[in-house]
Amino acid sequence: KQKYRIAILPGDGIGPEVMREAYKILNILKNDFLLPLEFQEFNIGGIAIDNEGLALPKKTLLGCENADAILFGSVGGKKWDTLPIDQRPERAALLPLRKHFNLFANLRPAKLYSELEYLSPLCSKITKNGFDILCVRELTGGVYFGHPHGRVKKDDIEYAFDTEVYYDYEINRIAHLAFQLARNRKNKVCSIDKSNVLNSSLLWKEIVEKVSNSYSDVRLSHLYIDNATMQIIKNPNQFDVLLCSNLFGDIISDECAAISGSIGMLPSASLNENNFGLYEPAGGSAPDIEGKNIANPIAQILSVSMLVRYGMHLTKIADQIDKSVISVLKRGYRTADISNNNNYLKTHEMGDVIADAL
Amino acid sequence: KQKYRIAILPGDGIGPEVMREAYKILNILKNDFLLPLEFQEFNIGGIAIDNEGLALPKKTLLGCENADAILFGSVGGKKWDTLPIDQRPERAALLPLRKHFNLFANLRPAKLYSELEYLSPLCSKITKNGFDILCVRELTGGVYFGHPHGRVKKDDIEYAFDTEVYYDYEINRIAHLAFQLARNRKNKVCSIDKSNVLNSSLLWKEIVEKVSNSYSDVRLSHLYIDNATMQIIKNPNQFDVLLCSNLFGDIISDECAAISGSIGMLPSASLNENNFGLYEPAGGSAPDIEGKNIANPIAQILSVSMLVRYGMHLTKIADQIDKSVISVLKRGYRTADISNNNNYLKTHEMGDVIADAL
Ligand SMILES: CC(C)[C@H](C(=O)O)[C@@H](O)C(=O)O
Ligand SMILES: CC(C)[C@H](C(=O)O)[C@@H](O)C(=O)O
Repeated sequence: KQKYRIAILPGDGIGPEVMREAYKILNILKNDFLLPLEFQEFNIGGIAIDNEGLALPKKTLLGCENADAILFGSVGGKKWDTLPIDQRPERAALLPLRKHFNLFANLRPAKLYSELEYLSPLCSKITKNGFDILCVRELTGGVYFGHPHGRVKKDDIEYAFDTEVYYDYEINRIAHLAFQLARNRKNKVCSIDKSNVLNSSLLWKEIVEKVSNSYSDVRLSHLYIDNATMQIIKNPNQFDVLLCSNLFGDIISDECAAISGSIGMLPSASLNENNFGLYEPAGGSAPDIEGKNIANPIAQILSVSMLVRYGMHLTKIADQIDKSVISVLKRGYRTADISNNNNYLKTHEMGDVIADAL
Repeated sequence: KQKYRIAILPGDGIGPEVMREAYKILNILKNDFLLPLEFQEFNIGGIAIDNEGLALPKKTLLGCENADAILFGSVGGKKWDTLPIDQRPERAALLPLRKHFNLFANLRPAKLYSELEYLSPLCSKITKNGFDILCVRELTGGVYFGHPHGRVKKDDIEYAFDTEVYYDYEINRIAHLAFQLARNRKNKVCSIDKSNVLNSSLLWKEIVEKVSNSYSDVRLSHLYIDNATMQIIKNPNQFDVLLCSNLFGDIISDECAAISGSIGMLPSASLNENNFGLYEPAGGSAPDIEGKNIANPIAQILSVSMLVRYGMHLTKIADQIDKSVISVLKRGYRTADISNNNNYLKTHEMGDVIADAL
């Protein structure tokens, strides 16, 4: 049986703490479900700067190249915030990884668990309808990587610029993926743009329209980004798959996370055309709670589930992991961030009850 | 006594309906407060396309040039949605007006009226603290107007691009305004950027920092746009003045409007360096309720108040208009959009009670 190799990058902050809990799940998958998994750990982010001088060392990159998937914790922290911006962990580790592996598709689910309705900042008139949104964000194009960009000083004037650019094939492939994903959900795609102002957005909209012709079973709608920002707050239940450019997806996916009120629950997947993927919690390294053993390991555990679902195509096993998480929520188990009283489990205890449930 | 000339552009949809109510206030200012006002109406938007063939006719532009301020209703509607995007009312009237008059500063207040707390989509845990945010959006730069931009077809590949560009002096002047405005409020400015990715944002951040040195009484903070989107939902009360680029301001100001739950209450002002301004409701033309006499005229009336405040510098009179609005709210008067029962005033009745209060 062929091995499935996972490069494990715990990183900084709470990364290593929640990764320890993910290991419990990975070991069950390996030892009890008999999946042919193989793990190897590498430095990334601040710890990599400390140990190897770079946020994304060669050795780590090589390790990821030799793997079938990356399980990522989180990077960044106060200690490295005085470095020049393009050497800092967030930027110097994540963006190059995305670009190097061509991870053009970022999948960020944001759902309201009925057990956790009280966490949402939205009023109960809205949360009572629930919501289950999948943000599909283009991740290797747009203004994040567009050329030219730079900074110019001429005489007494200084200016700086970036290029928002989209190629037809970039829009094409992310649109196809969004429609395909909608087919396993509620068959709706809402594409977000600013086509009343941006040339790149107008091309985006036109190509999404064209792609939609191949998916007559999926309903397509369009919203301007400013209006989308409002609709997500007013009536999140109307949405299924949200299809966004890199920058708009950065904003919209965080807004969707915010209305769920439980960012410690949200995983994400970044995929390329060969189905290689990077899986990571949507939240950051949370340096304020580092080392306290109170971080929520669920986002990291659900990242393992996404790896199993999208990387290994083992839908049923992924479903089982998701169900284990829901079952512990139903039984009332909470970590500090999602508890509405003083009763909560430590990070490792939450990992244990989920592992037990699985 | 010198005349203060106002070019009145009612536009489409509910524009003319709510403008009729604004006239009631304008006439009181003229006849009872003895302000030397002079009004002249011009076509703009869809009605201008119908009557004169262009969304922004020469005659209208000339009329605005000869005025001291523009009072704008709203533009757009189904009828003109099949036109090419750059001829449509929203884009072909508003953007050229902003650019022509160099209206670089867009002020959009978003506050939660304690009388209207029930309108907010946020839960009461959050709304009980209230919020009163002033979005200060750069309006004539950034990706809205940056060069080069366009669309290219080469062999089998097509791409489209826009340039996000900021000049130091553009950032400088909007930052100064934000800090000055904060001095009449809670002395806090939060500048929003994506300086971990964008060159233009990094210059933005650096110049805002520099400008802040002249305002030691104002506290400056910075947030990345993605994080800001979350914080506005989770804890809007922490904010006072939000300082944003054109694109981020478009998104953020609509998000702030959404959490208030009453976009029909929100005015805006767009100013240039000579204090010439365009004043308009933050909401759109609302074609779905056009002609039903149920639109909320308050945003248009508060736009008159902003004109008096920022254009004429008559703070006390502006305060009086604002107080008249609050007093009718306190007395329980509501239009349909802000009522929580079936008891509400028609558009012209709301205009009457506010005029009476004034
Ligand atoms: C850290 C930053 C560069 C990154 C982004 O903007 O993509 C982050 O916000 C994210 O969403 O993964
Ligand atoms: C209509 C559109 C071009 C405009 C903008 O994006 O600026 C609008 O959304 C606004 O905020 O005034």
